[in-house]
Amino acid sequence: MNANTTPETLAFTDGKLVLIDQTRLPGELVTLVCENVEQTHDAISRLVVRGAPAIGIAAAYGVCLASPANHEGYLAAIERLATSRPTAVNLFWALDRMKDVIQRTTADDDLAELLLSEAITIHDQDRQMCRDIGRHGASLLGDCRAVLTHCNAGGLATSMWGTALAPIYHLHQAGHPIEVFADETRPLLQGARLTAWELSQAGVPVTVLTDSMAGSLLKSGKIDAVIVGADRIAANGDAANKIGTYPLAVLARYHNVPFYVAAPSSTFDMALPTGDLIPIEQRSRTEVSNPHGTCVVPDAANVMNPAFDVTPAELITAIITERGVVTAPNPAKLTEHLR
Amino acid sequence: MNANTTPETLAFTDGKLVLIDQTRLPGELVTLVCENVEQTHDAISRLVVRGAPAIGIAAAYGVCLASPANHEGYLAAIERLATSRPTAVNLFWALDRMKDVIQRTTADDDLAELLLSEAITIHDQDRQMCRDIGRHGASLLGDCRAVLTHCNAGGLATSMWGTALAPIYHLHQAGHPIEVFADETRPLLQGARLTAWELSQAGVPVTVLTDSMAGSLLKSGKIDAVIVGADRIAANGDAANKIGTYPLAVLARYHNVPFYVAAPSSTFDMALPTGDLIPIEQRSRTEVSNPHGTCVVPDAANVMNPAFDVTPAELITAIITERGVVTAPNPAKLTEHLR
Repeated sequence: MNANTTPETLAFTDGKLVLIDQTRLPGELVTLVCENVEQTHDAISRLVVRGAPAIGIAAAYGVCLASPANHEGYLAAIERLATSRPTAVNLFWALDRMKDVIQRTTADDDLAELLLSEAITIHDQDRQMCRDIGRHGASLLGDCRAVLTHCNAGGLATSMWGTALAPIYHLHQAGHPIEVFADETRPLLQGARLTAWELSQAGVPVTVLTDSMAGSLLKSGKIDAVIVGADRIAANGDAANKIGTYPLAVLARYHNVPFYVAAPSSTFDMALPTGDLIPIEQRSRTEVSNPHGTCVVPDAANVMNPAFDVTPAELITAIITERGVVTAPNPAKLTEHLR
Repeated sequence: MNANTTPETLAFTDGKLVLIDQTRLPGELVTLVCENVEQTHDAISRLVVRGAPAIGIAAAYGVCLASPANHEGYLAAIERLATSRPTAVNLFWALDRMKDVIQRTTADDDLAELLLSEAITIHDQDRQMCRDIGRHGASLLGDCRAVLTHCNAGGLATSMWGTALAPIYHLHQAGHPIEVFADETRPLLQGARLTAWELSQAGVPVTVLTDSMAGSLLKSGKIDAVIVGADRIAANGDAANKIGTYPLAVLARYHNVPFYVAAPSSTFDMALPTGDLIPIEQRSRTEVSNPHGTCVVPDAANVMNPAFDVTPAELITAIITERGVVTAPNPAKLTEHLR
């Protein structure tokens, strides 16, 4: 994202959390200001801010908005924000860091400053994470001319370059010609609305396709690699990400195209041995049945709307974190990587 | 479809072609009347009527609307209607039958009656085709409780039961419990809007999913078979169908779920040795970028919009036609089947 012309995905200014309202893109670039915990909870639930790392940062700042500003108030804020979305583990990781600060601080008077400091640290580390994933990922994508991605794992999902898009930005800045094909990503079209928007802003050539076109695009031989983000990765490397990621991984394997997952180490949930245990958020019927307010499904029909699916580690060529690259991920390699 | 309560997909009444306007479903059930060739061309191009068999029947009736009603006028109508859509071969098959009538008729006076008679025959044969595909397909699907389909290859794509949905209607009428999962089928949502509508009307349980959810649905083990229609099938069994069919075939194979293609013999183009030679219609950017009038893709981004993809014969468990079933289709079996 071009920081000179567009607001940051999220910022904490004058004691308030300021978010780009991602539900309004690409039509309107407007910000939404959260002044309390409930507004932050609502912004996360409604996907005003989304993307696993950005959710974590937003939640950390959200804790700082608690009232009363004492142990009890902050702990209640953490409990409340933990219910905003279930799948992205970065949310719980960030809230756990905030909770640690509370638990090791005795005086209520010190809490506000220490918690804001921790949230800023989480935010700063996220920026560094983006740069590091960009560098490590670029070593894998250096020969690629065209990559396919799903949903948005870019600057709008983090504080800076994103995860899956970080290597693209890195290569683009280095003058390497690279173009991106972006699945539109139904039901909420984060690929069409967000990925296409931020890549266009940065001058990276981008082509939007419906999710159903990825199969024939991969068959055409035009795509050198698929790269996506993740919302939670189990100890064996199974990765939960936006619904539609798993079929893309199957298609990539079928066409012998490498399939990369880029995510910070905060996305790992080493307490879960496999991806089968990752809780999958089920979202409302209307996201599928009423796109942009027009009803496209008859009332008598049922509707499914799982927000995520799980890609087994065996379909993942490599996982890229801020620490480096884990090829053919397995429990031993990942434990070593995260040590 | 319940013929007692809903209009027919298409009918020729009082010298006019009456079509259900499928662009308005499921919100409104209204008909559109074509009184001349140009209106028929427009209705086919705009997908007021769609589905390979229905396009053929509509075009045949469209020829009957030519003016002047002489050899020259009818041949000009055929030439014009042949430009309405490029991929479904049933269109050209029906127009060729109408042309044969013209070429073997010397007197202009006889033409109107003979051409209408031929169009009615094409229409009648389509009804019989639906019943026969229903019967043959039911022999394959008899043990299935849940099937997945893509786009609409039902009553709205033909004169009666459809192709892919014909075995479902057959089994449902016979009291066999069967439910359907319908991909919504972006960009134009024929699965959500049309398949879900007509199955609901008939009392068949149906669940709509975004195209991106089919992977995890197949992984869940809930689906016993995938069945789709086709717009053109090459001599080796490669089948062009709505975009998103090919990835579904790859996913079905990966999960060991049978993948069936149901289509009348008029869908075969034996002049094409393989599916690589099937012309693929490219449709407008706005179908992807502006669903229901809301722009969801930034202007600076490119958009792909191929309307079809090609599934290689090796991924097709069986092709069902009105003549029977061809398992593991290949050129020799198909030549024999169509003899």
